[in-house]
Amino acid sequence: FAAKKVLIVYAHESPASFNAAAKDAAVAALTAQGCTVEVSDLYAMKFKAAATTEDITGGVKDAENFCYAKEIKLASEEGRLADDIKKEQEKLKEADLVIFQFPMYWSSVPAIMKGWMDRVLGFAYAQEKRYSEGIFKDKKAMLSFTTDCPESVYSDTGINGDINVTLWPLQNGILNYCGFQVFAPQIFWDPATGSPESRSSMLEGWRTRLQNLCGEATVYFAPLDYFDKEKGFLLKPEVKEKYASKESGLTVGIHMGKPLPANSQTKAGV
Amino acid sequence: FAAKKVLIVYAHESPASFNAAAKDAAVAALTAQGCTVEVSDLYAMKFKAAATTEDITGGVKDAENFCYAKEIKLASEEGRLADDIKKEQEKLKEADLVIFQFPMYWSSVPAIMKGWMDRVLGFAYAQEKRYSEGIFKDKKAMLSFTTDCPESVYSDTGINGDINVTLWPLQNGILNYCGFQVFAPQIFWDPATGSPESRSSMLEGWRTRLQNLCGEATVYFAPLDYFDKEKGFLLKPEVKEKYASKESGLTVGIHMGKPLPANSQTKAGV
Repeated sequence: FAAKKVLIVYAHESPASFNAAAKDAAVAALTAQGCTVEVSDLYAMKFKAAATTEDITGGVKDAENFCYAKEIKLASEEGRLADDIKKEQEKLKEADLVIFQFPMYWSSVPAIMKGWMDRVLGFAYAQEKRYSEGIFKDKKAMLSFTTDCPESVYSDTGINGDINVTLWPLQNGILNYCGFQVFAPQIFWDPATGSPESRSSMLEGWRTRLQNLCGEATVYFAPLDYFDKEKGFLLKPEVKEKYASKESGLTVGIHMGKPLPANSQTKAGV
Repeated sequence: FAAKKVLIVYAHESPASFNAAAKDAAVAALTAQGCTVEVSDLYAMKFKAAATTEDITGGVKDAENFCYAKEIKLASEEGRLADDIKKEQEKLKEADLVIFQFPMYWSSVPAIMKGWMDRVLGFAYAQEKRYSEGIFKDKKAMLSFTTDCPESVYSDTGINGDINVTLWPLQNGILNYCGFQVFAPQIFWDPATGSPESRSSMLEGWRTRLQNLCGEATVYFAPLDYFDKEKGFLLKPEVKEKYASKESGLTVGIHMGKPLPANSQTKAGV
């Protein structure tokens, strides 16, 4: 496996949960392949979720008009971040692959995991270095999560709407923005409702996938140079023209007013 | 104004911020119209963001395999929720309109606000009572937020992708799921970069809008009875047929493999 160091950011309260089992399965499978696996168990760590002035040591620059993104970037450059953020950033720096393991809460990650993203990834929010030029462009990342509903409700005619749309802000807005190459998500559909056998079989599928994760292509996102820096970061006319005859848009978000490419956030290379 | 009671859930650390000014403008404008306005200032309250077993008093039912959604619903029915959740739920119960005021962090709400949603709205996550039959179907809600980028980057050919896609998990997956009728979002595009005059003018626009908010139509979502309960909550064949000849899908998520309806998450009635 090309990824020698793996960080699993894990958010579930119960060690007996399916999420814990999925995390444990990943630790075992990756360790067996010779990877070094680090786990950030957010609830066990009582990880602070709220982005506050306390995240910056030695005083904020502009307390009167506190802007978290600006302050955290500056503090990061000057080594003035709170210890818990520093520790996570060290783990992140070492990692070749980051896996986020969580139960989906309200169409997104649980607040404690959003807090990890807000606080630990804050310094990576940089307009000059984003997307395919993002800070973590040499790293891989993926979402691995459980739902409490079957796959049908998240289809493009399902009541919750297309899962590819729901995943866009997480996979594009956060992971791709930071530069991560994103493996297709591992989605465990409603494990709680199924039988113990179906849960075992889901975990077995996950273990099997982990064996060959290194060989997987990543999810497609439009490269940074498709966009015109001088003109509001819109698609360049030549790119628009190139894709004009295609039946679907480039990606879920950059859809060009056309049908969304099917499964582009859940399958690699689409 | 039909909405006599308003709850503003507000997440910014600095009283000098543009978000604070937007919140204050809403309090003033709505109070002047005779509304009772309650503000939940999440950072000032040091609102707990993480969903934990401590949110349930008198012991959880299944500590071994703790499932937050199930436990919180049960605890809610039995009056066994933590005091801070109870207090917020009381405010929510009273409110005719809920406004979420926040700076967009990583394509979503800040973690502290996601925590409010995870913990306070948790009991409203009910498959039998959702969307147009959701618990809060007689209430209105809206997002009011700042970005740190101009509108162009969030267009359907912009580098961040269509803002309508980014808003879908928040507006459909959370607000609409709970039954809220959703007013079009109030988006303050990059106030930090503009001049003091442009900021004043944004706030003036917000005040003007608040004068007539009651008269606004809400964002369109597909009604619950469009979906077949017996068949995985997919669009009913007759509904699919009815909309087959339309150029665009029903909504951003339930797009039927067609182009997304333009601006459907940012404009009413589209």
